[in-house]
Parts: sequence; structure tokens; C-alpha cells
Amino acid sequence: MSLNGGLVWALTQAVGPAHVLTDGDLSAFEVDWRKRWFGKALAVVRPGSTAEVAAVVQACKAHGTCLVPQGGNTGLVGASGPDASGTQVVLSLGRMNRVRGIDAANLTMTVDAGCVLQAVQEAAAAQGLLFPLSLAAEGSCTIGGNLATNAGGTQVLRFGNARELCLGLEVVTADGDVWDGLSGLRKDNTGYDLRDLFIGSEGTLGIITGATLKLYPQPAAVTTALAAVPSMGSAVGLLQLAQARLGPGLTGFEVMGEFALGLVRKHFPQLPQPLPPAPWTVLLEQSDCESAEHATALFEALLEAALERGLITDAAVAASTQQSNNLWHLRESIPLAQSLEGLNIKHDISVPVSKIPAFVAATDAALERAFPGVRLVDFGHLGDGNLHYNVQAPMGQAAADFLRDCEKAVNAIVYDAVCAQGGSISAEHGIGMLKRDELVKRKSPVALQMMRAIKQALDPAGRLNPGRVLQTD
Amino acid sequence: MSLNGGLVWALTQAVGPAHVLTDGDLSAFEVDWRKRWFGKALAVVRPGSTAEVAAVVQACKAHGTCLVPQGGNTGLVGASGPDASGTQVVLSLGRMNRVRGIDAANLTMTVDAGCVLQAVQEAAAAQGLLFPLSLAAEGSCTIGGNLATNAGGTQVLRFGNARELCLGLEVVTADGDVWDGLSGLRKDNTGYDLRDLFIGSEGTLGIITGATLKLYPQPAAVTTALAAVPSMGSAVGLLQLAQARLGPGLTGFEVMGEFALGLVRKHFPQLPQPLPPAPWTVLLEQSDCESAEHATALFEALLEAALERGLITDAAVAASTQQSNNLWHLRESIPLAQSLEGLNIKHDISVPVSKIPAFVAATDAALERAFPGVRLVDFGHLGDGNLHYNVQAPMGQAAADFLRDCEKAVNAIVYDAVCAQGGSISAEHGIGMLKRDELVKRKSPVALQMMRAIKQALDPAGRLNPGRVLQTD
Repeated sequence: MSLNGGLVWALTQAVGPAHVLTDGDLSAFEVDWRKRWFGKALAVVRPGSTAEVAAVVQACKAHGTCLVPQGGNTGLVGASGPDASGTQVVLSLGRMNRVRGIDAANLTMTVDAGCVLQAVQEAAAAQGLLFPLSLAAEGSCTIGGNLATNAGGTQVLRFGNARELCLGLEVVTADGDVWDGLSGLRKDNTGYDLRDLFIGSEGTLGIITGATLKLYPQPAAVTTALAAVPSMGSAVGLLQLAQARLGPGLTGFEVMGEFALGLVRKHFPQLPQPLPPAPWTVLLEQSDCESAEHATALFEALLEAALERGLITDAAVAASTQQSNNLWHLRESIPLAQSLEGLNIKHDISVPVSKIPAFVAATDAALERAFPGVRLVDFGHLGDGNLHYNVQAPMGQAAADFLRDCEKAVNAIVYDAVCAQGGSISAEHGIGMLKRDELVKRKSPVALQMMRAIKQALDPAGRLNPGRVLQTD
Repeated sequence: MSLNGGLVWALTQAVGPAHVLTDGDLSAFEVDWRKRWFGKALAVVRPGSTAEVAAVVQACKAHGTCLVPQGGNTGLVGASGPDASGTQVVLSLGRMNRVRGIDAANLTMTVDAGCVLQAVQEAAAAQGLLFPLSLAAEGSCTIGGNLATNAGGTQVLRFGNARELCLGLEVVTADGDVWDGLSGLRKDNTGYDLRDLFIGSEGTLGIITGATLKLYPQPAAVTTALAAVPSMGSAVGLLQLAQARLGPGLTGFEVMGEFALGLVRKHFPQLPQPLPPAPWTVLLEQSDCESAEHATALFEALLEAALERGLITDAAVAASTQQSNNLWHLRESIPLAQSLEGLNIKHDISVPVSKIPAFVAATDAALERAFPGVRLVDFGHLGDGNLHYNVQAPMGQAAADFLRDCEKAVNAIVYDAVCAQGGSISAEHGIGMLKRDELVKRKSPVALQMMRAIKQALDPAGRLNPGRVLQTD
């Protein structure tokens, strides 16, 4: 029996032969959905319980084999698939998709890591409660992956990232021990914050197998408005005004550049755009615990005040849920419209909200100087200081050529500008393999040294998701 | 020159002779304010800058000397003073009390760790903004201490603990390096969450020297109400109703047992108590971004609905800021009233909110069986599942005798009940020396092992606040 044969036999013992995949088309587990990384797994293992995850980790430990934990495999940075060596085991959490329980009076729910985000939202909604994490991949990403990458999305302004929505974790350690940290407590000061260390560590420190999540009462009404703003400075001014007027009722504040909305007009002409083109368009969302009428009245008063102050030039308040959905649909169509326009160089950056206008002005100008005619697809979560500041080839230049020839230089300009404003090169997508080398250049050496010490402390053999986040030695 | 003499000389070089205290009455730095731990420092060092903190740590490293970081020295668990050996240096951050900057458009402020909490609140208020962390010691505790202990307080229900209010940290490591993690970003997924590892680590992993904090718009109105409830189950029902009706406008939900409010009546008869005695009394606070009238109308509708459902038997809405302050003053007088009544055995526990009624019923009964006539001073932050479940000697029994003879048995009953409900033995005060041994008994061995590995990774020589949180080997 070969060495791999021994491991496969042990994995089969751990999870049953039906759940150890070594043959056939495994590309759903081996290739990321954007098809940037083509890996080859030694085996794909699909445990059905936390105990089985622990058994898989122990088997891999005994054979000195590395593990790549995987949820919905919807990540954007190459953190959830195997490398091309054929020596790594993919541990897919997809079969662990049970809602373990909902505690309505405590406003918590406990779920398996493999639950699809949308299923988590729906289980909460079935009890009249809200799990607010929301992002484009919610129909296929898993809550374990959301936590492993500290996912962001559209509701961060009010509810925080995945990190802020999690009270407790269950984790299988590199040694195959189970840490039951599934606490439903809002206050617990008994030692170091292990929970937040695993959240955002992209499967490199332990394998999240379950989580206790925060829930909220469902709002009585959710409504949206669209506002045309003359400049990014005005957009920031509108944000301040909206935060003061609506307080925590302001649950969304998305900005869309004119070129980005123009791509939606071009590729999806059937989508209504209620406002005429403006340099920037803002989508505001308000969640109200009283009524739709109350929300609309607050919105109208806010937008009137913004008009008076010259912060906006035009606005439209959605008159129905259908109209609200249409406004969100506009925003959500930008990524698809830009794909239809051609490949582009994507960024997921954040700077302090107050620095966004200066960042955009300086970076737009620097890119235009370096690449005359370059087209900028700017949009994102302005309320969180997070822009998807994407760069498209000048009209007429082949997108693939532009990517091949210019990506490095474009990234250098963008990341230099981000760092000059005290920003982050990965606001919500993580590091994975994609930004690992950039991280070494951009992160403080003191921080990197502490990160390496922590990796060494919790996974000394380096068997968990090697080469992600940190370079393998 | 003695070994200590060499160190003191080096410390003098680092911070100037005026800021190295070795003589005279140093009890303000050596004894905790509740006078439970009487320590003796080798020296008290008061650096004036982050660079000086780093120089102090390097000097102590060179001499193999342990350091005890100290803020306002208001902690409750023996984490901020030296032991009695006379070999530990107290590093007091009190001179580092500068507000480094406020970024109103980003809703952040950056401060030195030694800023007193109240000064932080006031600096925010001066810009029309709110820093919501609020607790009894706010006039003398420091923000660095608040972060090192992940302080809670009265606004956690809406705004979270100190952890949730911090975006970035500056930390001096055990090696005397400075980590500049002073980010004002709401989204930053570039590697492991070092920030949250230091928050709540009680100075055992590094020394917090600065922080970037989240601010909020000031609400237009803050108002309070008092409600008499027949049972703890009704109090939890009222909380659910209030959360659904007021949403994030509900910023405080404190519960007070009849015996606790009775002590206030007895020792502070001049304080008005607007409601007749009831088994439990709840203090609700609402922060409104519209107006006082709007807040009052919402409160009245809520309390009417609660009356109709039998959740409350009586209620009073404060008609002025003065009346609101009076209601808070009632709540805040409980700790002093119980001190005047005599020593008692204090707890700072949390359980899921839904489990509070069962916890209180079972624990009250178990204590009464073990100690007939025992008096329970129950009050706390019900909205967070956090009770200060304090135990007073039966009437007529000397408090000191009761403490001496019964504390261990009382704690065993309380902590067994807490753990049976999935709770925490330290909700907001931390571990320090006080609960270190209890932690070993109550925390999962897997968690303890990870905590020890992290301590070893970041402070291998064990020089930072030794013997706190974790036993020194």
C-alpha cells in the first residue's frame, strides 16, 4: 500500500468511503470560481460531523499531510483550493449544514460551518429574526468560509463584518482537538480572544466547524433612496448628514461612479435608472423599527436637507419594496456589467472615509498619467471606507494585453496611494495566495513577526492551508 | 552598583529621573483601590511617550525584570499592581494622556493609552460626537486599561464592549518593539487579528500605548424609563419586546432586584424611588436620533404594550434629563449601598439572556439551602446577560466571618450554576490574579493550551504581567 493509499484508507475510516473523493471530475473543489487557480487534490474529504473533522485532521497529521479547508469555494484570493502538487487534502465542510439551534430570547443561533449563508439568513427569518450578513455569493458561500475570511458585504456600516456577528466558535485545531467555544455570551472576559484569532485567519490556524451567531429583530420596514452627488467630497458629506439624522437606521451607503453605472446602462439597458447620470450616485438604505411611512418621512427630510446644503443634486426615494429591490439590483449589476465589458484589474481597498475624496482624486490622476485613457470602475461600500476600485483598459486596448502588461504597475500605483492614506490592500476579501507577497511588502515587520509566531504556536508543523496568508518557509 | 541600581539607572535614562519613583509612598501604584492586593514595586516608571515605553521595556528585558503595566489602577481582579516581591517594575501610562486627533468624517479618534475615559468622552462630545463606553470608574480609569481588560459597562447592549469600540492599537511588544496598528479602518482583512488578541489580555502579551476608537453621532435625545416587573421571566420578555420596538434605539436595559433597591432605600433615603417595590425593577434607556418627544412617545407605546401583555405591573417615563439622571443614580447607588451594608461576595457572571431566569431561580434556591437567610444583591446589565450576582451574609451574621468561612462554597455554587448554563465566570472584569485558578478549573483544556501557546509565542520570557490570567510556570 502506497503512502497515499494508507492515508486514503485512514480518511475512509474517518468519514466513510462515500465521502472520500479521489477519482472523477473534482474541479468544483480544485478550481476557484473565477478560474485563477487550478489545483490538484490528493483527495477531497467530506466529513459529516465535528468528530469526523477531528478524525480527518488526526489522520493527516499521522501521515504528515497538509489540509485545505473549504466552504463554498467562492473566495476571491485563492485561499480555499489545493495547490497543484497533488499532495494536499481538501477538507470540504459542505455536508455539515445543520442549524443546530436558535435561541430567540438570546438573539443567537448556532450553526454548522457548512451552512450556506442564505440558509442561515432564511432560518433566522423563519423565526422573525435577522442575520444581517449579506453579500453577492450568499447563495453558495458558507458561514464557515465567511468567518474564516471575515467577510464584509453591504450591511457592515450598521452591523459590522462577519467578525462582529459571531459570538462563539467551534474549531478543530491542528492537532485534531476540538475546541468548543460555542458561546452565546455577549460579555465574556475569561482569557485571550481565541475566537477573533480564528476569524479571518483563512483556515491557517484551525478549522471552524461551528459558530454561534448574533441575530437582530427584523426591522418593520427597509427602504432605499438614490441620490446624485456632484463629487466624492459631497458623498462623504451626505454620509455624515445621514449618520447624524438616521443614526443606526442607516444600514447601507453604497457609492457608484458614473462610468460604473454607465456600464450597467450599456449592458443592461432594461434596468431602470431613475436619476440622470451624475459624477457619483449614492444608494442609501434605511432600516426602520417603526414603519415604512416613518422611514420614508425621515428619508425625505434628510434628502431635502442635503439638497439645501448642496450635497446632492437630485434624489429619488423608493416607493415600494419592488423599487427598493430595483435600486439594489442596479448596484449589484456593476460587477457583471464590468465583466461583460472585459477583464479588469480588481481592487478591494479601504481608507478612512474622510480620506476617500483625496484618495480617489490622486489615484485617478496618477493612473491617467501612467495609462492615458484608462477607465475606472469605482464603486463600493463608502460607509465603510471600502471601494472596489477597479481598473479597465483604455477603450480600444485589448483587456487581456492590458492585464498582462500593466497589472503590476497599476497595483503599485493603487497600493502606494492606499498606504499613503493609512489604508488596507484587502478590505474584505482576505489575503490567500493572491496578496500574500504584497502583504509582506505592505504590512509592518513587527506585525508580520507576531503573525508568524502565532502560526508557529498553533500550527507548528504548518499543515493547515500552507502558503496562504503567510509564506511557507 | 547593584543589579537593581543598574536597572534604575537605565530606567532613568529612558524616561528622566523625575519619572522613576522608588521612594516615598507609592501605595497609589502598589495597592488596588479595593485594597485586596498589597504589592511592592522595584520602581514605578512613568514614561511620557511610546518611544519611552519601548525604552523601558528594553531596559527591563536587558535586566531580566518583569513589568506590570498600569492605567488608572481601578481594576477589580488584581491585574494592574505589582506582586509583593519588590522585583517588578510598574509601568504607569498616566502621563501619556494626549488626544492625538479626532477625524469627525471618519467617526474616529486616536488617543494615548493613558487618557482617562471621561476625558475621551469629553473630547468626543466637544466635537458633537459620542464615545459610548461608560462605567462607574470613568473618572479615573484609562482607555488603555479599558482595552486591556475589554471593559463593559452600561452601553454594551447597543455599542458592544471596549473591544467593539476599538479599530486600531499601538502596542509595545515584549521585545520593546513598537507595533503601529493605529488604523481608522472599519474593514481590513490583512492577516491575523492582532488587535483583538491584545484587547482583553490584561497586559500579559504587550503594552497598549495608543488606540483608534470608534465614535458615533450624538443622539438628539436620551431618555429613560423605570418598569416594575413581576418576575425575571417577565424582565426577559420586556427586553425582547423593547428590542423589537426600539431596535438599536434601546441603549440600556438594567435590572435591579428588590433587595438591592431596598438597600438603596435604606442607605440613601433621600433618593426618590418613583415606583413601589416590586420583585424586579428594570431601567430602560433609549437614545433617539429625532427628538425627546419622539423618544417619549415610543417609550409610552412600548410600556403600554408591555402592561397589556402582563410583562410589567407599573412604569414611569422620565420627563426631563434631571429625572433620567435620577433613575441612573438609583442604579449606580447599588454598589455603594451594599458596601454600606457590609462586605459581600461579588460576582460578575454572564449567561445567555434566555437562561437568566432559570439561573437566578436555581442559584437563589441552592444558596438558600446552603446558607439559610442569605441575602442576594442581584443587579446588572440584563440586556447583555451580565449580572452582578452578589451574596451578602444572612441578617445578624458578621459579614467578615461569612466571607472568610463561606466565600469558597458560595463561589462553587454560583460558578457551577453559571457553567451549567453555558455562562462565564468573568463577564466584564477579567481574570487577573483573582480568578486565575478558577479559570483553570472552568475553561476548556484545549482553550487553555492555546492561550499558553500564544503567551509563549509573544512573551516567551514571561516578563509581561506575570502570573496574571495564566499561572506562571
